[in-house]
Amino acid sequence: MALSSDLTAPLDSGLALRRLPAGVEGAVRPLSMDDVSLGEHGYWGQWQRVNAESIVHHCAEWMEKEGWVENLIAAAEGSLPEARRGREFTDSDVYKLVEAMSWENGRRPTEKLESSIQRLIGIIGRAQEPDGYINTNFGRPGQAARYADLEWGSELYNYGHLLQAAVARYRTHGPDQLADIATKVADHICETFGEGAIESVCGHPEIELGLIEWARVTGNERYRRQAELFLERRGHHVLDDIEFGRSYFQDDVPLRDATVFRGHSVRATYLAAAAVDLAIDRSDAELVDIIRRQLDRTLGRRTYITGGMGSHFQDEAFGLDYELPADRAYSETCAAVGAFMLGWRLLLATDDAAYGDLMERTLYNVIATSPAPDGKAFFYVNTLHQRSFPDHTDVSHSSLQVGLGERAPWFRVSCCPTNVSRTFATLDSYVATSDDEGIAVSLYSPARIAATLPDGRDVALTIETEYPADGRVIVTVPQHEHGGFRLRLRVPQWAAGATLRRGDGTVSNVQPGWAVVEQVGLVDETITLDLPMPARFVYGDPRIDSARGAVAVERGPRVFCVESPDLPEGIHVDQVVVDDTQLPRVAADGTVSVTARIEQLESNTWPYSPEASDLSRSENRDIALVPYNEWSRRGPSTMRVWLRTT
Amino acid sequence: MALSSDLTAPLDSGLALRRLPAGVEGAVRPLSMDDVSLGEHGYWGQWQRVNAESIVHHCAEWMEKEGWVENLIAAAEGSLPEARRGREFTDSDVYKLVEAMSWENGRRPTEKLESSIQRLIGIIGRAQEPDGYINTNFGRPGQAARYADLEWGSELYNYGHLLQAAVARYRTHGPDQLADIATKVADHICETFGEGAIESVCGHPEIELGLIEWARVTGNERYRRQAELFLERRGHHVLDDIEFGRSYFQDDVPLRDATVFRGHSVRATYLAAAAVDLAIDRSDAELVDIIRRQLDRTLGRRTYITGGMGSHFQDEAFGLDYELPADRAYSETCAAVGAFMLGWRLLLATDDAAYGDLMERTLYNVIATSPAPDGKAFFYVNTLHQRSFPDHTDVSHSSLQVGLGERAPWFRVSCCPTNVSRTFATLDSYVATSDDEGIAVSLYSPARIAATLPDGRDVALTIETEYPADGRVIVTVPQHEHGGFRLRLRVPQWAAGATLRRGDGTVSNVQPGWAVVEQVGLVDETITLDLPMPARFVYGDPRIDSARGAVAVERGPRVFCVESPDLPEGIHVDQVVVDDTQLPRVAADGTVSVTARIEQLESNTWPYSPEASDLSRSENRDIALVPYNEWSRRGPSTMRVWLRTT
Repeated sequence: MALSSDLTAPLDSGLALRRLPAGVEGAVRPLSMDDVSLGEHGYWGQWQRVNAESIVHHCAEWMEKEGWVENLIAAAEGSLPEARRGREFTDSDVYKLVEAMSWENGRRPTEKLESSIQRLIGIIGRAQEPDGYINTNFGRPGQAARYADLEWGSELYNYGHLLQAAVARYRTHGPDQLADIATKVADHICETFGEGAIESVCGHPEIELGLIEWARVTGNERYRRQAELFLERRGHHVLDDIEFGRSYFQDDVPLRDATVFRGHSVRATYLAAAAVDLAIDRSDAELVDIIRRQLDRTLGRRTYITGGMGSHFQDEAFGLDYELPADRAYSETCAAVGAFMLGWRLLLATDDAAYGDLMERTLYNVIATSPAPDGKAFFYVNTLHQRSFPDHTDVSHSSLQVGLGERAPWFRVSCCPTNVSRTFATLDSYVATSDDEGIAVSLYSPARIAATLPDGRDVALTIETEYPADGRVIVTVPQHEHGGFRLRLRVPQWAAGATLRRGDGTVSNVQPGWAVVEQVGLVDETITLDLPMPARFVYGDPRIDSARGAVAVERGPRVFCVESPDLPEGIHVDQVVVDDTQLPRVAADGTVSVTARIEQLESNTWPYSPEASDLSRSENRDIALVPYNEWSRRGPSTMRVWLRTT
Repeated sequence: MALSSDLTAPLDSGLALRRLPAGVEGAVRPLSMDDVSLGEHGYWGQWQRVNAESIVHHCAEWMEKEGWVENLIAAAEGSLPEARRGREFTDSDVYKLVEAMSWENGRRPTEKLESSIQRLIGIIGRAQEPDGYINTNFGRPGQAARYADLEWGSELYNYGHLLQAAVARYRTHGPDQLADIATKVADHICETFGEGAIESVCGHPEIELGLIEWARVTGNERYRRQAELFLERRGHHVLDDIEFGRSYFQDDVPLRDATVFRGHSVRATYLAAAAVDLAIDRSDAELVDIIRRQLDRTLGRRTYITGGMGSHFQDEAFGLDYELPADRAYSETCAAVGAFMLGWRLLLATDDAAYGDLMERTLYNVIATSPAPDGKAFFYVNTLHQRSFPDHTDVSHSSLQVGLGERAPWFRVSCCPTNVSRTFATLDSYVATSDDEGIAVSLYSPARIAATLPDGRDVALTIETEYPADGRVIVTVPQHEHGGFRLRLRVPQWAAGATLRRGDGTVSNVQPGWAVVEQVGLVDETITLDLPMPARFVYGDPRIDSARGAVAVERGPRVFCVESPDLPEGIHVDQVVVDDTQLPRVAADGTVSVTARIEQLESNTWPYSPEASDLSRSENRDIALVPYNEWSRRGPSTMRVWLRTT
């Protein structure tokens, strides 16, 4: 089923990397899906199994039920606009589903998936108009005209996802009808939005990613240039002002002049990811640096400890610097997917292990927080502090559907489930990168890697680990006939005291960044990386209100939290006051706990008084924590990440 | 111009109080506008002058400019819907303007005001349809049908303000065309929404207040019963569910079953105020207690230190308990007006001085924060923490128009300016209440009171004070021919060590609540209340993230803040760390200051680390504060109320 490795890299910034001159130093290339196989018994292998067996099908069922596939069928049958259901961007979710299904089908093909994909491609094809246009919400009598509402209409956003679906299908199956559809779409876009035509952009960045990836597949430079035009235009007030301001869709300041991410967090991260794609293809080191600086400032001031981005409910946007409420964290799952995509592209462009850290933080603590273990419910928003049990009398069904304290099976705006699905479907590909010297492993999970280096040498290795339950990573490398290669292993920033042991030989200390092992594979050998995984306290910048006077607990790549099921009956998480002079502990079974007391607190009296809070004299006790990404699995609960301290 | 005192009480819950049996104990009645005259040199007298000379006219000019008066003219001319401008509730602002103008004109009549009022009444009258209906946004070809959108349409909300305008005009001028218009409206409502007719409510409570007040004016019980029907229906899911949930318009839980304010904060406070009005008229002590308990819980868990209510931008709603972000405080000016209205009604219903405290806190720290000193710009939202200078490149004009860090001359949703105006226009009336025993003074500002007690005795007194700059209140009472009466003076909760001196005689300590002076007026005498006014530290409940690890400063009734113009060049308010072992100070000129150091803080690095913030060894220095309600008067600034502590 899978083609040559040239064509199977999933988020394929890397394909173009061979065209990278020395201008972008240290760049690495991705491994293809065929090069890496995640072990099913590992942490991410298990999530991939849930994705294959449940999430993909769950999304497909809901999309049928909600009528979003039917919208496309209705487009072909001519029964729009009457028959149309759902928001203006529902087409995009069908495309994201095709993308997720295609990657899954490439990884582990099934007849069921293949026929579902073929059916959807047929439906999309019949919905396409002769000039390439496809959209169920515009252009017919009784609908707004094509491209009449670039601010909100999402037509180009939808196309972006269609092109990414076509990339996935192409790389896992080869050219078929979807490739033809995509090329007609891409040509239509270039004709409609090229120089001298509509010189504007889409309110929601995404088309730029799709066009660049389709340019890589087809080798058609015109598509890349069109993406570049979109990137250059944005920021020059080409869209109308809206209630939330032009920063909402990053049309306030040109891409290269901006200093920080702002506005809608999914839009902002998608835009930055596309910029890095273009920078790689254009060998534009300056643009890479611009995005790095924007991200640095965003990570320094506008990112949750989970890696979550965006704190506003009102406009799903970044707040101002240090405006990071825990109880009103928006931290949309899709923004985390965007940050993950950006981190991946920056890792490829720069080879800086810090982006591996970012990807890991975001993947464990936001993306993997969203789905329920059965893959049939999701968080859309990912709060860091659940103050009360979800109140079904007081909150409307539709509000519940952004997942306030409970995962929901589906959403009216259903971007998140398919985004989780397409990310999980491609997880193999994020395990490691390659360069002329060898392999760099970034994501730790049991896996086999068998790849061809850019210089043509075949390399192979096996990774075994209980990560993130344990910090030992064992890499087994058989003897290689072509001689040794360089193995690099990412040492996360938190891994103070990490050590590397080669064979049964010397143990060396390794620092955060890349631990480098030269000339592996000359003999059969085992390399053991030990990342110490005590539970640790983490303090936030005191400008972050939710973190001040509080402490968080992390262990390995995961953030932990206190959740009401682990507290005595009737005790609220807000009553837990941690004694941070006593280090957190990890029990033999992996349970993380802290020393804390339960404070008795008054309510219903004016909460501002001349006396600072006087902690009651209750005794210290052990309070068990759970990984944040496992919260709300035991029924409705209260929860907090930032634990009050004495 | 003014009529008998029977007819001039402004927010006239009190008019009905004579019908109160003993069931609602301790109830008092309001003084009329003629009974009290605020001295122009005092704090509130000055604001009244700004209102009369500027705010009323500023509002009138903007309403002409924005076309909202023109909408009503167009209704009469038949040029709607084409000619219509503005949001669906613009009619209400014209009515609120007429209300504010009427009270101002009653207090200090001018020809200009009188002719403006008459012109507007004529315009409103011509817009009224034969069956009493008036609305510029519904019911015509090309518009939605009357009452087709009770959730958002605001038709009944608009009427509520029309009826309150009619009350103001009636009590300051007597019956004229506006009374006829109002009665036709009230009859139309009763016919359209009475039993067996449309058995629903308006998405925005307000009509209930208007109907009860119009019932008091006209003596028509039918209007009161209609208000009661509206109050009884709400909470039974009579409105459609909306994105924000039915709690948004308090249709989630019946009024008497609710335990706390929730949903849209203006809607919630208006509804509660109407409930107290009805409870007073119906002698329904149980309903008063229900609202008191709801308010107690709201004050204990969902209210800012300023008295501000509502923390959500998304739905202008109350957050969950203790969800009170300072940097993202919504604290809408109109919600404070609603809380003030509610406090006033509960003060009348219960005679509990705590409601005087609430009114004072809200009036000083939210309502008076909104307008610029010249009365030509307003805050719509009242943040407690301005993290950055208002960014004109990054925020749209319309976003700025909710007053994010800068007062704006007008808003697309312009409820706040006219709400401030009608509150300022009636401030005299909140100075004191009366009962058979005498007078209780609640709001301290220079004033003269000459009133007739319910038992017929005339009483008079004069108040002199520099309040809130100084806590001395001197009440001068001449000898009264009818003998002595009881004088009560409100001692705020914060006024520890308050003393009362009668004539040159004994000084007695008085506790928060009412300080009672029996038999004043038997001779010419002077009563001096001394409310000690040191600056004081106030700590918040540790569940409030913004207040944790921080301290606020209050002096007298006012909250203070640190603002960037008072800091060394380039220093951000977030760098100020208060040494709260050193008490705040008040200089001879009244300047409040604290001891603090300036912390150097890193940025652009991951803000979560194993080390708690290590305060630099910079030296303590004096940092001057300003009253919160005076912030942002010196140009764009950063500001915070909750100051970090060591």
